[in-house]
Amino acid sequence: MSEKQMKLGAALLATGEQMASWLYPSTPADAATSLTHYKHMVQKAEEGKMDFAFIADGLFINEVTMPQYLNRLEPVTALSVLSAYSSKIGLVGTVSATYSEPFTVARQFASLDLLSGGRAGWNLVTSALDGAALNHSREQHPAHDQRYQRADEHLQVVRGLWDSWEEEAFLHDKESGVFFDPEKMHRLDHKGEHFAVQGPLNIGRSPQGYPVVFQAGSSEAGRELAAKGADAVFTGMGGVKTVEESKRFYDDVKGRLAKYGRSPDELLILPGIAPVVGATEAEAEAKYERIAGLISIENALRYLGRWFNHLDFSAYPLDEPFPELGDAGSENYKSVTDNIKRTAKEEGLTLRQVALRNATPRGPLVGTPEHIADVLESFFRAGAVEGFILLGHVLPEGIDDFVHHVVPILQQRGLFRQEYEHDTLRGHLGLAIPENRYAAKRSDKDLIDAIGIHSAE
Amino acid sequence: MSEKQMKLGAALLATGEQMASWLYPSTPADAATSLTHYKHMVQKAEEGKMDFAFIADGLFINEVTMPQYLNRLEPVTALSVLSAYSSKIGLVGTVSATYSEPFTVARQFASLDLLSGGRAGWNLVTSALDGAALNHSREQHPAHDQRYQRADEHLQVVRGLWDSWEEEAFLHDKESGVFFDPEKMHRLDHKGEHFAVQGPLNIGRSPQGYPVVFQAGSSEAGRELAAKGADAVFTGMGGVKTVEESKRFYDDVKGRLAKYGRSPDELLILPGIAPVVGATEAEAEAKYERIAGLISIENALRYLGRWFNHLDFSAYPLDEPFPELGDAGSENYKSVTDNIKRTAKEEGLTLRQVALRNATPRGPLVGTPEHIADVLESFFRAGAVEGFILLGHVLPEGIDDFVHHVVPILQQRGLFRQEYEHDTLRGHLGLAIPENRYAAKRSDKDLIDAIGIHSAE
Repeated sequence: MSEKQMKLGAALLATGEQMASWLYPSTPADAATSLTHYKHMVQKAEEGKMDFAFIADGLFINEVTMPQYLNRLEPVTALSVLSAYSSKIGLVGTVSATYSEPFTVARQFASLDLLSGGRAGWNLVTSALDGAALNHSREQHPAHDQRYQRADEHLQVVRGLWDSWEEEAFLHDKESGVFFDPEKMHRLDHKGEHFAVQGPLNIGRSPQGYPVVFQAGSSEAGRELAAKGADAVFTGMGGVKTVEESKRFYDDVKGRLAKYGRSPDELLILPGIAPVVGATEAEAEAKYERIAGLISIENALRYLGRWFNHLDFSAYPLDEPFPELGDAGSENYKSVTDNIKRTAKEEGLTLRQVALRNATPRGPLVGTPEHIADVLESFFRAGAVEGFILLGHVLPEGIDDFVHHVVPILQQRGLFRQEYEHDTLRGHLGLAIPENRYAAKRSDKDLIDAIGIHSAE
Repeated sequence: MSEKQMKLGAALLATGEQMASWLYPSTPADAATSLTHYKHMVQKAEEGKMDFAFIADGLFINEVTMPQYLNRLEPVTALSVLSAYSSKIGLVGTVSATYSEPFTVARQFASLDLLSGGRAGWNLVTSALDGAALNHSREQHPAHDQRYQRADEHLQVVRGLWDSWEEEAFLHDKESGVFFDPEKMHRLDHKGEHFAVQGPLNIGRSPQGYPVVFQAGSSEAGRELAAKGADAVFTGMGGVKTVEESKRFYDDVKGRLAKYGRSPDELLILPGIAPVVGATEAEAEAKYERIAGLISIENALRYLGRWFNHLDFSAYPLDEPFPELGDAGSENYKSVTDNIKRTAKEEGLTLRQVALRNATPRGPLVGTPEHIADVLESFFRAGAVEGFILLGHVLPEGIDDFVHHVVPILQQRGLFRQEYEHDTLRGHLGLAIPENRYAAKRSDKDLIDAIGIHSAE
């Protein structure tokens, strides 16, 4: 298969992406911490030859946290366990760069990469909300720019530590008694604004060299961080609305790579999708309604209110046009609230409709398997995405349906692999295994020696 | 079996406890990061019905680090993977309280406890050496007392977070739409000298309530910390020399519990042992010599020098009596150096003998399986220990030999279980599952209400 194929990841989101997903009949209500459920999902995604499974995270809860995030598995432990129940699929997990030590992150992902045979990925996020700070002995979370500067430096340190050992550093030669080649062990000696880390890391170079790095923010600073150093961008829910909108984001981010000396194909853009699949269009619509209907209108209004500084929408008439709110809306979520107001006006929606759509975003992905495949193909062929991350509204059905009904069509069309052709996540994603920085320097030097540049001296 | 039985853990120490263990013929030279090797060891220990497998840790390396610690698996990821390849045995791992966030530690061990069905244990250590500080953006490690104060508070916070949710907090009632009982979710609101952590934890109460807490330091501050809050003490290598010495340590630590309102059976004392097993005494001696002989005399001298401020022992004659060194010896290791000097004098040892014994401690545990069992039984029956942690000089042979030859004898004598009788590590160790502090308060209140103390008002 020489034609370029799309990349597909599956988010293992406990009961599902939708806030009331735990009420869905086929969803186990205790799915959030059920090993049986997580095993099923990762094995189903692997059956679908998907590139990776993804575990998101959060660092605090309060009374209004969605049920599926009150009681959740910690990503590093969960992915490590799931590595034993899978053999090819990539395993990507979120760890915040705001509240972690680079030495710990570098070790845990290198160790997972090693134990899984080269399947680990780190979704680097910054933690934006005060609740996270209050769980980590800080009074306030750092300001947005500070967080991203710290994340950038964190990533540099982690990658620096991943270069601590060159590939053939461990000789294990019982004959000669030589365990390792000291020339191939390197101290990082990083001293920056946020971190001072000496190294070397106490684990050797893992199968992928660097585990794959995802970046999940799409703010200005997030785009810049991704362009500078990530391998893949996860643009979150609602990433697939119109091809034009996706293409704009895609071109913007890809356009930022050149100034960091990177080529556009070194960064994959993977928006989130939440398709609802039915044998017929009517069946899919009915299923969407069933899922959307899991949420009471009270909860949907409360959830909508979160974007608007916890505005009490229950004071407004439900079945009249969405109210004029003037400037109401949290500064943090301005792009979201602007979008809600604009769409409500353009489509003439009532408050009820806005609240329910906000709680269960639908986009163009409700329909037959062929329809879903058509939409995904159109985004892919337009060069607006490299692939998608599946965020099922309800799980495991969201993953099961996609693997059983949509993947085979994508495979028939030559848009997706029939079988795994690689063993590592980098292999699946078509990303090269990076050369160790010190080995690279050495081979430059060898080359210079070989062609005799010094002979002119 | 009503008679009290000993507790047995197996340390999965890469190639083995001895510095040259990787050279041993039956030890895979690349064992330190080999999943095959770790699977074998955990399954062998489970075959021996041992209480737990244990993964130690360190937070820095340098040129003089022992080979098996240059390139090692990270404990949390490794134990998570091993949970999938085992079903009963406890899984205990070291995480430093000096360089970790209590919120992260609480989550990772709660998640491992949940995923393993109640088998997780945390070995709480403090990090003593400058190298660790330099990998974690600190110029110097905190002073000894500060480290222990921080560790004590760290543990309080972790346990507080483990009480965030009461046992029946998650109702998952699809009928009524009630996901959880807000009365059973609790914020910690800890504000101490080293940590400020609000909570609640974003994972529910795990099967053990609190994963088991091990403590591995045996300094004054370490003993106090263990007496105050640990479930088990791991006293390290060389813990088994004479019954009297062990008994002294045992009585000292146990004697400290009362002032914290704890009874002596709430803390288990488990010294490390490194038996060398042979079919005959001569065979065992020969095996000990073979293992000790893996280390070159140069390395043994260098290793000995570490205790004495890196004294260059190669300047002294090898086969003459151990030199008079006066006060030479690092202040940090005074008890070690005093002991070395005293033993050398008492037994009339040469420098070569001292260096080799120091590198491969032998103690009384070289001999036939019956002899090993006799020694272990004598310590156990004297009330000097609750059990032992097996630190094989060379692995996996150290674990294989113990499980094949020594465990059956202990079982025949009724000193060790024939089959697992519990599913959790607390069950194996005979430790109660602690009641959630808020549930305990509530039941006190119920009791007070029931007996009508308020009726006098």
